[in-house]
Formats: sequence, C-alpha cells, structure tokens
Amino acid sequence: MSEMAEVATARRSRITPEREAELYAAVLDLLREVGYDALTMDAVAARTRSSKATLYRQWGGKPELVAKAIRHNKPGNIADIDTGSLRGDLHALTSREDDCTMQQNAALMRGLFMAVHGNPDLLQAFKELLIEPEMEEFHRVVQRAVDRGEVQAGRPALDYIVHMFVGAFATRTLIDDQPPTQEFLLKYIDAVVLPALGIPVD
Amino acid sequence: MSEMAEVATARRSRITPEREAELYAAVLDLLREVGYDALTMDAVAARTRSSKATLYRQWGGKPELVAKAIRHNKPGNIADIDTGSLRGDLHALTSREDDCTMQQNAALMRGLFMAVHGNPDLLQAFKELLIEPEMEEFHRVVQRAVDRGEVQAGRPALDYIVHMFVGAFATRTLIDDQPPTQEFLLKYIDAVVLPALGIPVD
Repeated sequence: MSEMAEVATARRSRITPEREAELYAAVLDLLREVGYDALTMDAVAARTRSSKATLYRQWGGKPELVAKAIRHNKPGNIADIDTGSLRGDLHALTSREDDCTMQQNAALMRGLFMAVHGNPDLLQAFKELLIEPEMEEFHRVVQRAVDRGEVQAGRPALDYIVHMFVGAFATRTLIDDQPPTQEFLLKYIDAVVLPALGIPVD
Repeated sequence: MSEMAEVATARRSRITPEREAELYAAVLDLLREVGYDALTMDAVAARTRSSKATLYRQWGGKPELVAKAIRHNKPGNIADIDTGSLRGDLHALTSREDDCTMQQNAALMRGLFMAVHGNPDLLQAFKELLIEPEMEEFHRVVQRAVDRGEVQAGRPALDYIVHMFVGAFATRTLIDDQPPTQEFLLKYIDAVVLPALGIPVD
C-alpha cells in the first residue's frame, strides 16, 4: 500500500462505515449535478453537514475524496468472484452492474476522465486510489486462471488486460457513440480478451 | 463519401496542394502552441496570410479545419502498405512514424481528445473527416488478410480492431503514463491484435 493510501486509511477509520457511505453518495450526487471542476469542498461540507476541516483531515483533498467515492460505488469485491473459469469470472464481473447503472457510471467517468486534463492531481489520485487497487484485484482473478492452467504463464496478453478493457469502454463511448452495455462487453470479452489470452471460445 | 466531406473536397480543390499543406502545417503549429480552445480562425488567418472568409469558405469552420490538418499530417496512405501478411502490414503501419514524431502527435491528440469535451462539433468533424476515412483504409488492409485466408471471415475480433488500438494508445498514455513507442506497439500487436484475430505469433 502506498503512503498516501495508508494515511487515508488511518484517517478514514475515525468515521463509521455508514457515515463514510453517506459522504461518498453525496459526493457522487454532486459530481453528477455540477461536474468535477465546479465541485467544491464547501458544497460537500454543506450537503453532508460536515466541516471542511473534517473533510480535508479525512481525505486530504478533493481529488482523493472523489477517487475514493468512485471506488466505494463499485459493487462488491472483484476478488470474491470465483466461478472456476476465466470466462465465467469475466462475465460475472461484467454482470455486477445492470445496463442503467453502467450507463450512469460511464457518463460520470467520461466527465471525470475529461477533468483529468488540467487536474494532474486528480489523475494521480485516480491511479493510486482507484485504478491500482482495482487492477490488483483484477490481476488476482487472472492469476487464478494461470494457476488453474487455463492461461499459460508468461502469455504476452497478460500484460495488456487493462489496455483491452479501456479500449472497449473508451471506443464504445466516444467513437461508436453508444453506451457500454452488458451485451457489448460480453461479446468483446469473447471476441478479444479470451482469444488474446489463448482461451478458445466456441 | 459523406455530404460534408464532398463539399469540403469541392471547396478545397480551389487552392493548390502546396498552399493546403502550408495551411495545415500552420494550424498544427498553432494547436501545439495554444491548444484547441484558444485557437482562433483569426490567428490561423494571420499566421497563413489568408482571409478568414477564405478559411470558412474552404473548410466550413474550426473543427473541420483542425480534423483535416491532423489527417493531412499522417504519413503516407495506409492502403499503400501491402507486405503480404497482416503482421507485416501492421508492423509497417506502426513504423511509419518514428518515436519522436509519434510522441509529438500523441501529445497533440491527447489535447484534442480532451477538447472534445465541450466541443461536440469537434468530435463530429473528427469522426467524419479523420477517424472514418482512416478506419476505411485500415479495414482494407485487414480485408486483404481475410481474402488471403489469413484471418477467418466472420472472426469476431474483426469488429473490434479500432477498440484494441484505442486501448493501446489511451492506456499507455494516460494510465501507464508512458509515451507510445514503436517497441510498445509492436509488442501489443503481437500480444493482443494478432492472437485475437486467430493469427499465431511465434
């Protein structure tokens, strides 16, 4: 765990999980209403009836608070999924969110992704508090497939799993101009991700 | 060809190719200097000693002018590449630009990609004047591989070639925080694109 994440965990332990969930939900609501750039710690404090000092003490700043709120919003723990096959695990991962939730989150993520431009501290917080922990869990799912002998250890595509998924989401949203749906993601997993990893799909 | 592109071609034919190249180069210089949002048609007119009326008559507006300038900047014609194998063709495509040019262009594209947020007309011009024509050429390269029997017709990954490449560029630039290089792209093609298309790589 990085120093930043350790400090954040130590700080966060001072509030109850219920209160934490309430705060994150308010942050996401505000993000959807005004976007990242117009979101202020004052507004979060007012909406959640907390003091700004508390928010800064617990999270360090707006980028960290937003990254943590997004991560908290993800349903379940990736590492809990264990269907016995990589295809089953990836399909289960994709089915954690229904299409409506996925589209709301895609809109939110698109806005945040754009806000990264001009907010390098947001990109940093995203990497450290959202992308890296999530990728670590994700790699555990893939590692189990390697351990089962489903994927060959050292298979070159193992280094590019994030790239394949980012490509699916970004291209679908921006170039195809269509929302990511479960149907699309399942097709993409079977067409690209599994064959690249050497798993035949009938 | 779309109506928009036909009109642009008809208009463009009134100026010489040399003058056109000069104009596009000036637009790219300005883009690198000030970014999309701060770029004005006034500045383009001043830099290229043309009238704003001419610019609007020839290109329609800033988004179209920028998309055309980017497309003109791409070296050579994708469809001219024909090495006899898809791996050879994709590697040749990747080697059209040296690492330095690729990094300069990646920085430019990253800025423009961010500018798409809040400029839907830019996204529209990009799709119509840059992405679609380029993808059409690209698909001809892949279609030749299908015609040669190298890739099975109907292979599901054929629908996701753009997604795979966008994933490589976007993830490398934003999440890996590293410039796209030829070495990276060649590895990615061998690890992801070719296996997904069912072409074994030794």
